[in-house]
Amino acid sequence: MIIVMKQVARDEEVLKVEERLTEMGFAPHRIQGTERVVIGAVGAQKIILPTGLEVLPGVEKVVPITAPYKLVSRQAKDTDSIVRVGDVEIGGNEIVFMAGPCAVESEEQLLTIAGMVKASGAQILRGGAFKPRSSPYSFQGLELEGLKMLDLARQETGLKIVTEVLNPQEVELVASYADILQIGARNMQNFALLREAGRSGKPILLKRGLAATFEEWLMAAEYILNENNFQVMLCERGIRTFETSTRNTLDISAIPQAKELSHLPVIVDPCHASGNWRLAAPLSKAAIAAGADGLMIEVHNKPSEALSDGPQSLTPENFDRLIEMVAPIADAVNRTIPQAEIKNSK
Amino acid sequence: MIIVMKQVARDEEVLKVEERLTEMGFAPHRIQGTERVVIGAVGAQKIILPTGLEVLPGVEKVVPITAPYKLVSRQAKDTDSIVRVGDVEIGGNEIVFMAGPCAVESEEQLLTIAGMVKASGAQILRGGAFKPRSSPYSFQGLELEGLKMLDLARQETGLKIVTEVLNPQEVELVASYADILQIGARNMQNFALLREAGRSGKPILLKRGLAATFEEWLMAAEYILNENNFQVMLCERGIRTFETSTRNTLDISAIPQAKELSHLPVIVDPCHASGNWRLAAPLSKAAIAAGADGLMIEVHNKPSEALSDGPQSLTPENFDRLIEMVAPIADAVNRTIPQAEIKNSK
Amino acid sequence: MIIVMKQVARDEEVLKVEERLTEMGFAPHRIQGTERVVIGAVGAQKIILPTGLEVLPGVEKVVPITAPYKLVSRQAKDTDSIVRVGDVEIGGNEIVFMAGPCAVESEEQLLTIAGMVKASGAQILRGGAFKPRSSPYSFQGLELEGLKMLDLARQETGLKIVTEVLNPQEVELVASYADILQIGARNMQNFALLREAGRSGKPILLKRGLAATFEEWLMAAEYILNENNFQVMLCERGIRTFETSTRNTLDISAIPQAKELSHLPVIVDPCHASGNWRLAAPLSKAAIAAGADGLMIEVHNKPSEALSDGPQSLTPENFDRLIEMVAPIADAVNRTIPQAEIKNSK
Amino acid sequence: MIIVMKQVARDEEVLKVEERLTEMGFAPHRIQGTERVVIGAVGAQKIILPTGLEVLPGVEKVVPITAPYKLVSRQAKDTDSIVRVGDVEIGGNEIVFMAGPCAVESEEQLLTIAGMVKASGAQILRGGAFKPRSSPYSFQGLELEGLKMLDLARQETGLKIVTEVLNPQEVELVASYADILQIGARNMQNFALLREAGRSGKPILLKRGLAATFEEWLMAAEYILNENNFQVMLCERGIRTFETSTRNTLDISAIPQAKELSHLPVIVDPCHASGNWRLAAPLSKAAIAAGADGLMIEVHNKPSEALSDGPQSLTPENFDRLIEMVAPIADAVNRTIPQAEIKNSK
Repeated sequence: MIIVMKQVARDEEVLKVEERLTEMGFAPHRIQGTERVVIGAVGAQKIILPTGLEVLPGVEKVVPITAPYKLVSRQAKDTDSIVRVGDVEIGGNEIVFMAGPCAVESEEQLLTIAGMVKASGAQILRGGAFKPRSSPYSFQGLELEGLKMLDLARQETGLKIVTEVLNPQEVELVASYADILQIGARNMQNFALLREAGRSGKPILLKRGLAATFEEWLMAAEYILNENNFQVMLCERGIRTFETSTRNTLDISAIPQAKELSHLPVIVDPCHASGNWRLAAPLSKAAIAAGADGLMIEVHNKPSEALSDGPQSLTPENFDRLIEMVAPIADAVNRTIPQAEIKNSK
Repeated sequence: MIIVMKQVARDEEVLKVEERLTEMGFAPHRIQGTERVVIGAVGAQKIILPTGLEVLPGVEKVVPITAPYKLVSRQAKDTDSIVRVGDVEIGGNEIVFMAGPCAVESEEQLLTIAGMVKASGAQILRGGAFKPRSSPYSFQGLELEGLKMLDLARQETGLKIVTEVLNPQEVELVASYADILQIGARNMQNFALLREAGRSGKPILLKRGLAATFEEWLMAAEYILNENNFQVMLCERGIRTFETSTRNTLDISAIPQAKELSHLPVIVDPCHASGNWRLAAPLSKAAIAAGADGLMIEVHNKPSEALSDGPQSLTPENFDRLIEMVAPIADAVNRTIPQAEIKNSK
Repeated sequence: MIIVMKQVARDEEVLKVEERLTEMGFAPHRIQGTERVVIGAVGAQKIILPTGLEVLPGVEKVVPITAPYKLVSRQAKDTDSIVRVGDVEIGGNEIVFMAGPCAVESEEQLLTIAGMVKASGAQILRGGAFKPRSSPYSFQGLELEGLKMLDLARQETGLKIVTEVLNPQEVELVASYADILQIGARNMQNFALLREAGRSGKPILLKRGLAATFEEWLMAAEYILNENNFQVMLCERGIRTFETSTRNTLDISAIPQAKELSHLPVIVDPCHASGNWRLAAPLSKAAIAAGADGLMIEVHNKPSEALSDGPQSLTPENFDRLIEMVAPIADAVNRTIPQAEIKNSK
Repeated sequence: MIIVMKQVARDEEVLKVEERLTEMGFAPHRIQGTERVVIGAVGAQKIILPTGLEVLPGVEKVVPITAPYKLVSRQAKDTDSIVRVGDVEIGGNEIVFMAGPCAVESEEQLLTIAGMVKASGAQILRGGAFKPRSSPYSFQGLELEGLKMLDLARQETGLKIVTEVLNPQEVELVASYADILQIGARNMQNFALLREAGRSGKPILLKRGLAATFEEWLMAAEYILNENNFQVMLCERGIRTFETSTRNTLDISAIPQAKELSHLPVIVDPCHASGNWRLAAPLSKAAIAAGADGLMIEVHNKPSEALSDGPQSLTPENFDRLIEMVAPIADAVNRTIPQAEIKNSK
């Protein structure tokens, strides 16, 4: 930590800051510049406290040196983490496809889509039973009935299940049906939910908040790891910017940054990022080229009748083509695609 | 709702859209333009459903006509709503001051600050017992002990209490100690929390999310009113933009917009908006000039020792001065300030 | 300047950075932390050079200490600057109103509006002769004819003239007709234009760019002052954010910040900031309450026939009311309004 | 164009709007909804005028139907445009690499780098002779001397030259040395410059402004095409968002969108987008995977001594590796890389 004093700071103000640092367990190192004093504070802190130094007289700013995340960082673990869900490995060499409808709407709808995405190569079925909706008048999901349909789809197809949990009170229930708990973008800083989900011991897919900085996203993951749950996947799904031609702006740079600064796997959701199914394929190719470990894709057999997010859902045929288009990119970055051999032999 | 067809749309595609609209209970009105067809869909909908029209072949875009909020709108109620908390009226002629520390830290700290903000004219004491923090290693609040201290401060000073609730499971507990439940910016779209807080019947202070559009903010309020709780205050606390010289950007335009489109009272939090106590007074003056009904101000007797948000906290002396500076502005817009007469007679 | 070394930096890498600093005329001060080395670089620089230190092996980041602006800063001049345009003072005690149409459209239009805003109390007439338009097919202004009409309006009303200049080649021409040269938001970093406008010796109204940080805005002003032209007014006109309910987001905090960090006068343009004439009055009140020295307001006698920006233009009657509403706010912050006495005696 | 009337609009207000539309040459089509009236305006407009309809009494909003760009759109030309610079084709099957230093610093520097990027496979040399800098105290470029060095580098290496022009007055000069004129991000809406550059007849590389919407970017290109110059390349170089971990946010979605809605080639500049040379390779791979036609890369032989933008410059060795990493991606999307055969045969 560096404390930059004002040009007009008096000597006793500098002394007061040094005193405060010493009280807090730091060793202060004063640098007398030509225009002002700067103080370096040396010392390792286990717990980051507000230092209060910013409001001491004469202090201009406090510059932190150390990143606030610990357990999620490459410093803590320098090999890539692999999240294991049964026989599916996320963060390994094989690209993972999570596909399915935005919302579980009926048994027939879910089983139909599940069968089709399975055939295309998806390893994991996505589908919301509890839906966070901007309007209280929108469809809120089938809740428990939806969870049971997901369970049935797993039994019939062997696909693993990822589904969102919205409320700390429902973590136990959702965890009893799901293989992976999804924390949605709106809940990225719902800390009670992060803790409860962390404690469930289940793998967690953590979506980045619409306006969350890269650092806040890693800190949200830190909440889960701090509950001794290391099975966390980061999911980039677009951030909110001034640009309105897409629903959100996919932050493609977040992928290589996350891979450089953290050991956690990175999943990309091009459908929410763009809000436009036609952009799903090019964004998927870009994501894999940039180093993503998997993709989350909305697939609906009748997008025009979907109860939510139809415009960003692919038909099963388009999903199939998406995988075909992603395959050579995966190959170009030395990653594999599920069942690629079988498909090639068709 | 207006459906804009593509220039290349074929006649059967237009017919298909009209058919779909009829199925959904709308009367379609086709407008044959020189370059393309546009279809107006007539019919009142109680519940807003995804129409799925965007994904029909030939459709370019769907333009909604009606605002999605109902109960919070001026159409639903054309007189200003007044939230009553005992003898304090929020949204009436008198400007309301909510002041106190970011976090409840100790009985002595809270009672000292409470006494001082009371003397300055505040009607409501703010203070966090449950704190949402970006880092799991930061101070998370005194929880139940903090609530008890707030209760004690109320008894000693007669101030009303506003405090944040983070978790649907804790609504009942917090509601048993607080006069007003605060929903924080990070939880603005925590719909389970909105519903549970709504059901408590307590007045709710709803902070705008960092990246929430004006419309999303009103829709979050709609969730609470939809639980038959009309005691809702909107709180503008800055939005996240590219500008980093302030912590957030106070969206001053949101005040007159909220007053025009909604009947709910509007509170402004200049401390979180700017992250800088020196900007609190000018932003408070601006907020009242623009039509805000009240201010939420962080006050700490020892900002440099505060366990959170010290840099944006005012000393009690500065808070006193802030009220003095706001008073003539309030007068200029024909609003009153609490105890202004008594203070003037000092 | 502080150089933060990586945790893994080797000793020779630290030495290399120190060597480089010494070559550049700095005295390096090494601080050996528990986890890493931090180097403070002491020495005053007249000219800010890229240091290249960020790319030396082992360097994590370089943290600048000193603000890059010099001449515009309070350090350079601690009293408020007053821009004088004939007998009009901008930045003094009296609030300045710049009013008129977005574009000069005809002699009749301009003279009608000029007469009316003069009667309402405006001291300065605004009106565009050269218009920057997003589309090449939109009306681009009357150019020289427009300048002549502005000149005529000055003669008839005694109002001072502010008008935009778009091209360095046209500075001389525009300066021969205008009292104040306006640099538009799109040209805030058109450095050739800034230099040429600076050299004209004319007072300059410098609009903030849509995505310009506060610091970049001051640096743009620095370009003008660096041409030995100190007659500069900063104009906040809204920044571009994710919020779409207003055309831009008025950064109200920029006003007190500019007054704290710079000595230059600050003008606010609520019409461009909001894109909505109904918000002009509340935003004007807020701007004056926050410390602005003047307002720039679009006024058109027939907004529905305006060749540009009709929706954000006030009628002369509404402009008159705006001044009446701003007057008590000005009074509350101990500022005066032009001709207030005459109007009160009406 | 669709005109949405207010719920409270009176019949004479609706009639007035229809009358106005008729005057403007539109045929109005009234749709009587259950809650309000909506009017469809039919008629093709050559020139987009402000309609002024928004400010008529009773009008709530006006919704444009037709995109404002004409010449740049796929409707105007449905085959991909290829920009030809001597024997180099941009927008064809071969990926184009534009590489070189941010600023031309000396003959030796430029010739060294030119030789190295040529050897790596670049077809075009980039290098700034006129530099737009936030600070008037920063290095502003070698100007004419720099242009002459670029000319020399072309003669020695056969590379084509792209360099920025800042001022309409300098277009002729720069055009006499450059093969491609670059319009920088800060000048994207410097319309005088766009027109003058357009008239030069030279190929133009048009960088997207930091806060320019996708539509504004295409409209800026429209200015150039409107001067009868169709040799335009769009260059995505990152937009300004709240995220600060990268210098800007690369809008990867802009690539497939530009390819869908326009016929112009798209170049991506990952160095300015990220401000971090370590991200250049993954972002380059993503850009090509998403459909970009070329890359613009900052290369400096001694980044730590660069006079600008060192931290985002690659060494020639890293540039060589970047091309090697991009090659298999290009192959995966059926594009070729320059001299790939020669390099493979090494």
